[in-house]
Amino acid sequence: MAQKIKLSTIADALGVSTATVSLALRDSPLVADTTRERIKDHARTIGYIYNRRAASLRTSRSGIVGVVVHDIMNPFFAEILKSIESELDRSRQTFLLSNHYDQLEKQRNFIDTLLQLGADGVIMSPAIGTPREDIQMLEENGLPAVLVARSVEGAGVPVFRGDDSYGIGLATNHLISLGHRRIAMIGGTDQTSTGRHRYQGYVLAMEKAGLKTQPDWRIPGPRTKQAGFEVSGQFLALPDKPTAAVCWNDLVAIGLMNGIARAGLVPGVDVSVTGYDDLEEAAIATPALTTVWNGQSDVGRRAARALLDRLNGVAVKTSPELIKPELHVRQSTGKPVERK
Amino acid sequence: MAQKIKLSTIADALGVSTATVSLALRDSPLVADTTRERIKDHARTIGYIYNRRAASLRTSRSGIVGVVVHDIMNPFFAEILKSIESELDRSRQTFLLSNHYDQLEKQRNFIDTLLQLGADGVIMSPAIGTPREDIQMLEENGLPAVLVARSVEGAGVPVFRGDDSYGIGLATNHLISLGHRRIAMIGGTDQTSTGRHRYQGYVLAMEKAGLKTQPDWRIPGPRTKQAGFEVSGQFLALPDKPTAAVCWNDLVAIGLMNGIARAGLVPGVDVSVTGYDDLEEAAIATPALTTVWNGQSDVGRRAARALLDRLNGVAVKTSPELIKPELHVRQSTGKPVERK
Repeated sequence: MAQKIKLSTIADALGVSTATVSLALRDSPLVADTTRERIKDHARTIGYIYNRRAASLRTSRSGIVGVVVHDIMNPFFAEILKSIESELDRSRQTFLLSNHYDQLEKQRNFIDTLLQLGADGVIMSPAIGTPREDIQMLEENGLPAVLVARSVEGAGVPVFRGDDSYGIGLATNHLISLGHRRIAMIGGTDQTSTGRHRYQGYVLAMEKAGLKTQPDWRIPGPRTKQAGFEVSGQFLALPDKPTAAVCWNDLVAIGLMNGIARAGLVPGVDVSVTGYDDLEEAAIATPALTTVWNGQSDVGRRAARALLDRLNGVAVKTSPELIKPELHVRQSTGKPVERK
Repeated sequence: MAQKIKLSTIADALGVSTATVSLALRDSPLVADTTRERIKDHARTIGYIYNRRAASLRTSRSGIVGVVVHDIMNPFFAEILKSIESELDRSRQTFLLSNHYDQLEKQRNFIDTLLQLGADGVIMSPAIGTPREDIQMLEENGLPAVLVARSVEGAGVPVFRGDDSYGIGLATNHLISLGHRRIAMIGGTDQTSTGRHRYQGYVLAMEKAGLKTQPDWRIPGPRTKQAGFEVSGQFLALPDKPTAAVCWNDLVAIGLMNGIARAGLVPGVDVSVTGYDDLEEAAIATPALTTVWNGQSDVGRRAARALLDRLNGVAVKTSPELIKPELHVRQSTGKPVERK
């Protein structure tokens, strides 16, 4: 790695922190103008801009791969990570994991740490609001990136994620085919591309079947089991009593089913519920959850392979690779039952 | 941090990897004798052994804290981590997480990475078989360590964990007081101190009440929801049909309850089940789980504070701090029912 200019080289020369260097090179307003110019001048002087080529000449590897996501403790990301680890695992491979909790600063600090270490690459589900420049900066510093689950428009790196609009359509159409006409959607947020795509997919499927969607029938927000449990009362009290709920993910669906059971109704009989992701847990829930397989293992495996390809100098596609979801029908969905 | 000798300094000087240096300094048989001696000689020459004192002189911090556990995706560790993060969180703090999956080599690679980075400290739930020398090596390199959940005999660093024998006794005594006489224990392993303490605590509580334990009534192994689900058939077919199950943790208990429900019985009515940990999920399970609060938030908070104290040069206790568990009674336990 001797030929690679590290942020710390610049930082040491100028007596500033690597974080400051990193921010300055991204034109962050957090760095004073004079400092920024001093850093950028120095970077140019020592040939920082030639780094991309230098990176391609690298032959030695550090054996370190970074993975940063919203929350690694969410089983959806955990299953992606397991798949990455089993694909990349070598005796001397070290995985450094970090949560950004959708805070850009946390994501940037982690990236700076990877740059300091001369890490081999990073697999990330980018924080909400990640500018394309943050991804391009990685590339310019010789740290190849691969995105999972979320895209960053114009970043020019490989992306692996599920086809969310299509997937939620599978769940919605399944309920419609069972005879449901009043279907609610529980959870998710419009702040992410994933959230927008799933909501649009649900609306589209309803409209195609000639069914109305009521604004009231959408309960946005929940993404966890706890939150799904907490909105179960609100769901059961919705106007015109929907007979089914399409949930943002399996966690929300399982929490909602627990809340429905607590209210004395039987999920899968009195109310139909669908999940999304097909976590390991979905098949053993009570009742077993009808859900949409979202390809976590595929996403992880393909992202890991794309990173290996990049390290080996093999060209990889930078247009998003959409994994086709599949419907898995179990016990949590049935014919509609009118509640009193 | 200029006064600190890093492993990479030795590695660079001798043209070997930092991993090799680290292994050699620990007298690992994985390093050839001649290489090991060369490394140890050089380390002595450049004053490596004075490092402990150098470390205490450190004033600048890297802002990096490492956390390594068996599996960060296990909600038990996830809840400890959340508590560590909320205690230590500063705008520029970076948490590096890693799973060792009880493989010493993975744990060592992660530690080497932290040493390379000049990390401020590490909080770890040590891998099965971690020798005390591995922990002492951290200290000698100026990387303060704090242990959670598991002890390493003689390591001489702070340890925070629950009182497992006492805690499992709470669950067992609760079932005995409800009238249960035939109580099984599901899950856990004798390979960890935690596993041994919980099994001993269960046996002790049974014996104190004058009840027999049958070897058959112990089903060791399961630690996940999936595994708890899978042994439910085996549990229901045990000789003399135990009327209750004390489970290794909440995950096993929830999986077992799902399996019992799948078999047409009602957990909490036909069979009583207790968990351990009191994960967030326990309260919203169906039925709500009677379990033992294991102090994850306390463990995380106190471990974080002990690390901060160490960084600030405040002396901290190195004898294990046992957190007193508490019984939380919910719906999954009731009077014994004889099955046909």
